Amino acid sequence: MSAEVYDFRSDNVGGVAPELLEALLAANRGTAAPYGDDDFTHAMTARFRHAFEHDGLVAFPLATGTGANAVALASLANPYGAIYCHETAHINVYECGAPELFTGAKLVGLAGDGYKLHAAALDAALALAGRGNATRVQPFALNLTQPTDFGTLYSIDELTHLSEVAHRHGLLVHLDGARFANAIAALGCSPAEMTWRAGIDVVSFGATKNGAMNAEAVLVFDPAVAARVPFLMKRGGQVVSKARFLSAQLERYLADDRWLERARRSNANAARLAQRLQAIRGVELSGKVEINMLFARLPDAAVAALDCGPFRYYKLGLDQRFVCRHDQEPAGMDLLVTTIEGALA
Amino acid sequence: MSAEVYDFRSDNVGGVAPELLEALLAANRGTAAPYGDDDFTHAMTARFRHAFEHDGLVAFPLATGTGANAVALASLANPYGAIYCHETAHINVYECGAPELFTGAKLVGLAGDGYKLHAAALDAALALAGRGNATRVQPFALNLTQPTDFGTLYSIDELTHLSEVAHRHGLLVHLDGARFANAIAALGCSPAEMTWRAGIDVVSFGATKNGAMNAEAVLVFDPAVAARVPFLMKRGGQVVSKARFLSAQLERYLADDRWLERARRSNANAARLAQRLQAIRGVELSGKVEINMLFARLPDAAVAALDCGPFRYYKLGLDQRFVCRHDQEPAGMDLLVTTIEGALA
Amino acid sequence: MSAEVYDFRSDNVGGVAPELLEALLAANRGTAAPYGDDDFTHAMTARFRHAFEHDGLVAFPLATGTGANAVALASLANPYGAIYCHETAHINVYECGAPELFTGAKLVGLAGDGYKLHAAALDAALALAGRGNATRVQPFALNLTQPTDFGTLYSIDELTHLSEVAHRHGLLVHLDGARFANAIAALGCSPAEMTWRAGIDVVSFGATKNGAMNAEAVLVFDPAVAARVPFLMKRGGQVVSKARFLSAQLERYLADDRWLERARRSNANAARLAQRLQAIRGVELSGKVEINMLFARLPDAAVAALDCGPFRYYKLGLDQRFVCRHDQEPAGMDLLVTTIEGALA
Amino acid sequence: MSAEVYDFRSDNVGGVAPELLEALLAANRGTAAPYGDDDFTHAMTARFRHAFEHDGLVAFPLATGTGANAVALASLANPYGAIYCHETAHINVYECGAPELFTGAKLVGLAGDGYKLHAAALDAALALAGRGNATRVQPFALNLTQPTDFGTLYSIDELTHLSEVAHRHGLLVHLDGARFANAIAALGCSPAEMTWRAGIDVVSFGATKNGAMNAEAVLVFDPAVAARVPFLMKRGGQVVSKARFLSAQLERYLADDRWLERARRSNANAARLAQRLQAIRGVELSGKVEINMLFARLPDAAVAALDCGPFRYYKLGLDQRFVCRHDQEPAGMDLLVTTIEGALA
Repeated sequence: MSAEVYDFRSDNVGGVAPELLEALLAANRGTAAPYGDDDFTHAMTARFRHAFEHDGLVAFPLATGTGANAVALASLANPYGAIYCHETAHINVYECGAPELFTGAKLVGLAGDGYKLHAAALDAALALAGRGNATRVQPFALNLTQPTDFGTLYSIDELTHLSEVAHRHGLLVHLDGARFANAIAALGCSPAEMTWRAGIDVVSFGATKNGAMNAEAVLVFDPAVAARVPFLMKRGGQVVSKARFLSAQLERYLADDRWLERARRSNANAARLAQRLQAIRGVELSGKVEINMLFARLPDAAVAALDCGPFRYYKLGLDQRFVCRHDQEPAGMDLLVTTIEGALA
Repeated sequence: MSAEVYDFRSDNVGGVAPELLEALLAANRGTAAPYGDDDFTHAMTARFRHAFEHDGLVAFPLATGTGANAVALASLANPYGAIYCHETAHINVYECGAPELFTGAKLVGLAGDGYKLHAAALDAALALAGRGNATRVQPFALNLTQPTDFGTLYSIDELTHLSEVAHRHGLLVHLDGARFANAIAALGCSPAEMTWRAGIDVVSFGATKNGAMNAEAVLVFDPAVAARVPFLMKRGGQVVSKARFLSAQLERYLADDRWLERARRSNANAARLAQRLQAIRGVELSGKVEINMLFARLPDAAVAALDCGPFRYYKLGLDQRFVCRHDQEPAGMDLLVTTIEGALA
Repeated sequence: MSAEVYDFRSDNVGGVAPELLEALLAANRGTAAPYGDDDFTHAMTARFRHAFEHDGLVAFPLATGTGANAVALASLANPYGAIYCHETAHINVYECGAPELFTGAKLVGLAGDGYKLHAAALDAALALAGRGNATRVQPFALNLTQPTDFGTLYSIDELTHLSEVAHRHGLLVHLDGARFANAIAALGCSPAEMTWRAGIDVVSFGATKNGAMNAEAVLVFDPAVAARVPFLMKRGGQVVSKARFLSAQLERYLADDRWLERARRSNANAARLAQRLQAIRGVELSGKVEINMLFARLPDAAVAALDCGPFRYYKLGLDQRFVCRHDQEPAGMDLLVTTIEGALA
Repeated sequence: MSAEVYDFRSDNVGGVAPELLEALLAANRGTAAPYGDDDFTHAMTARFRHAFEHDGLVAFPLATGTGANAVALASLANPYGAIYCHETAHINVYECGAPELFTGAKLVGLAGDGYKLHAAALDAALALAGRGNATRVQPFALNLTQPTDFGTLYSIDELTHLSEVAHRHGLLVHLDGARFANAIAALGCSPAEMTWRAGIDVVSFGATKNGAMNAEAVLVFDPAVAARVPFLMKRGGQVVSKARFLSAQLERYLADDRWLERARRSNANAARLAQRLQAIRGVELSGKVEINMLFARLPDAAVAALDCGPFRYYKLGLDQRFVCRHDQEPAGMDLLVTTIEGALA
């Protein structure tokens, strides 16, 4: 893509952060055991344990977020099971059935304002799920996408209440953290607070959308669950041969605050862009902007003007979606705003 | 692993080739569409078409060989099917059921000398497979591992005859080319000759074991099959987000002869090592050495001496396996030989 | 269960119709090829072809309705697919994941008044299903439950419009006819009119709830689909060994009008009971009574009185469900009515 | 099939025993809870407990042997598992992948004389199975077919040793007893001796081939395993609606010795036929005749003569298979013998 294009399509259109490239290059020395039994992977696990303040955490590196979700959920699955999630959850809509393939389970999507599940509604749904009734799939997992695909966030309290409800009904809780960093940055909490302290049992930890080169991790806090993951990884074709190149990135990722700084910058870019768009008469934002993405409903003239300009963005139904990277070009954001202003003047 | 260790465990303990790292770094500029709809991936496909002399070839980049095999086989599958393969095939033994998960099929392993299938035996087995009999799974694919996990090679004639038999019985043919380069280097043939000209329908093209950083490709020659692959990739959690970093490597990989030079060097290292080991009284090689791996049966004293030394290698049953990389340290090979000689003197 | 109990739980609590028992006994002579390659099964197919006015129909006998649904849907499936259905569909709620297991597909449940899908809503949903988008499961089948589990009926026009929408979007249509006879009796149409003439592609034809002894059939109108069914049946453990005892029943079932008479009587029993209950002050029926089941919301006093009496019925949420058989005892219906009247007097 | 045909194809070409038909008819009175929560099913369980001398046994009625095997194995399965069996096992060859579908597991077929597994070979194979190695499927079950599809029998000692080996390696043991009665009759042992006392954990109990009308049962001795079976049954489409008609048969089946008398008669018919055939010069039996089936290698002239005569039998490879029912017509056996004698005279 030529330099003069301004790309608001997604955070994964961005490149790799310098310190992660350095870590990659540094890992390319000597030989290393394949499939994750190497020093880089061990160091990565230690780093995750420290960052998450949990000595029993086990981290499994893999290359895709869909793989992470599917493996994480499979580690909790029973063979006639159900996974409860929001009806708009990424796992329910955008993974082409991967969670179903890996788990053998049925996904049950519930409605909920703000693209979020609500504890009372979950409680009610689980009460009607037919626990013990052999005609009904048996719920084993709750999936929470944090932040959601629509840029909304669960508060720590909301996560905690949802986990409590899930646990009370015998479900374990999976957090899909494809944009984990953006959530942490927005909430100002610690990784521990957003995960195991809030009752989360397994995590898909995404780093790719925040500067890594196809590096994600499944995080498990319970050793009994962790013992099953290597098999589920392999059966899912998720074990990379030269794992050190994923692990070295992930280890470096958490080694200082740059991951959070990037996430804060992406979030701030979106907040500023939202503010400026909102100030334009005729532009309506769809929902709050809590992380690095915003949904707007632009008049046709504005859309037409953007489509003639050097912009990339997605149209989702009637909305236009703009995702901001940490290194989103200021000139691009300016031009986006002035283009829309011009069209609507 | 510290520098003084000599590692004969596998070719995937090695690092990334310099030109591929350069390609990676070069790809890290600007933004690119995610999930494979980017210029690097388009260029990669063009490069594969050129290298394989086939205009209809479609190439799908992914991070694992198991994923490549499972997706490639799934692209051929029927829902009550069987995949015929050698009983020692990688897909049958070392992928923890991934091919079965992705295809829903049963693997039928046949015996065969040299870890290879033989056309007459395949013909006989397929004649008894019960085509049309509803109590029997229906064969849809033949898997050929080239080279085999035990370092043996099919000749082009053997591949061609096996494909003919398979096609005559209504099966399509999958070539598991985790060590594709070593086979090409050893046979001195072209990629086209070893694949579609020999009747191969889909290929798992491995580059990781020959210098890439977790970059493999599924290659498909038939557009109807290719149309199904993107869905099977996604459903298998195999679509990497920043695909450009796989595609850029693969494009560069085939751009000149370095991939073949590396493979020739690995093969030559193994040949030379084999020659020297064979010259030692008491050492017996298990089978011909055709690519970059050799299996030996060493006396206990030799094994004990190796285990005290700075060596890494695998024991498989009664055999010791030594795999050579293109950059296998000459000092390491010398020391291996002299250590064994010393122990047996 | 002792004779004095009046059972309104379901139609499958009833016994086997006399003429079907006779057919069973008559089939128990001599030997017969197993697994459906017998004269009784051939005669059954001929009978279905006649009854459905379709020379290409192929009928597969099996013992369970869940098996019929799962096999029928699997005969249409692609490997990354979706089945659209009403959110309350039997296949979506009460089959413990059997359709998912047999098809590998995801079920997408849509809302709709009267427990029915509506053509416009289906059209809108399919337009957003992401045909060709590899992140989305690809729809291949529409499931229509006729009558629904809640006793409502699609008109022939509704079935036809829904099939048209489905076909336009590339889906084939499955009709779950567990209570096929009750629907035919209520609509006064022919089997052909309610199935292939209305665009239905495959049918789960239920006979058990209307007098058969665990005998159902999968009906297929397209020979290409039919060719796959025997394998899917076997893979699903659905091929009974002594198939003649299913086929003989089904052949006899359609041989005269007794199946319809029974269904008409069940429907009439429910209609009459509904009328009498509706006349009681304090009793509210939930929805129209179109076939042989009615849902009522009874005051607590009435429920308490019933629970002390010789009645069997199901409570579903806040509703009480009463299903009438063709041989529902008049005394039982009388006593039900007078018990409720007494409790509310 | 007309009366003058003599049918040696299989035992499931036969009809239903009179006492089981009576039980069926007797069960057709009043109403009964569907799906196995009825008095007949409870009585059946009690009868099985008595017959198997095991108070914790739980019995699940179903209509097909393939369903029984697939559900029984699924009740033991882990999600990345392997089932060890003889390479010629029914589950491995003749069930079109049903065990794989229901379990998600891989079947590993071992060689063994007499179509039987041998304890030492099993032990050796399991030692190489890679327990704990994530590239390898993890064995969870051993399948023993008793008697085998080729009419051979495991002794109680052989069963016991195989179970010991399996248990030592962490596998549970499934007995496929499609011809359970013939094995009991031949061995002269009790059901308990051939199952749980010999270390068997779950049983597919077949009655159909010995006089029942499509009635089989899954027998489980461990309550934790039994708790999962109802869900696996439903998910597999194996729960018949009017379960009383299966349970009533099975209850009656075990109520006296007629089931064993029938099995003894079938076995004796085959033994006598074998003796007479063996006496004919030119006829060679393939293996011992231990139950009700015999395999012979007849000269072409004999086969041609049979094919002109009123006989039904199967050709399997170079062998001819003759299965005897308890009510095999003496005239038919005489004519078979004299026809062969005539052809070879």
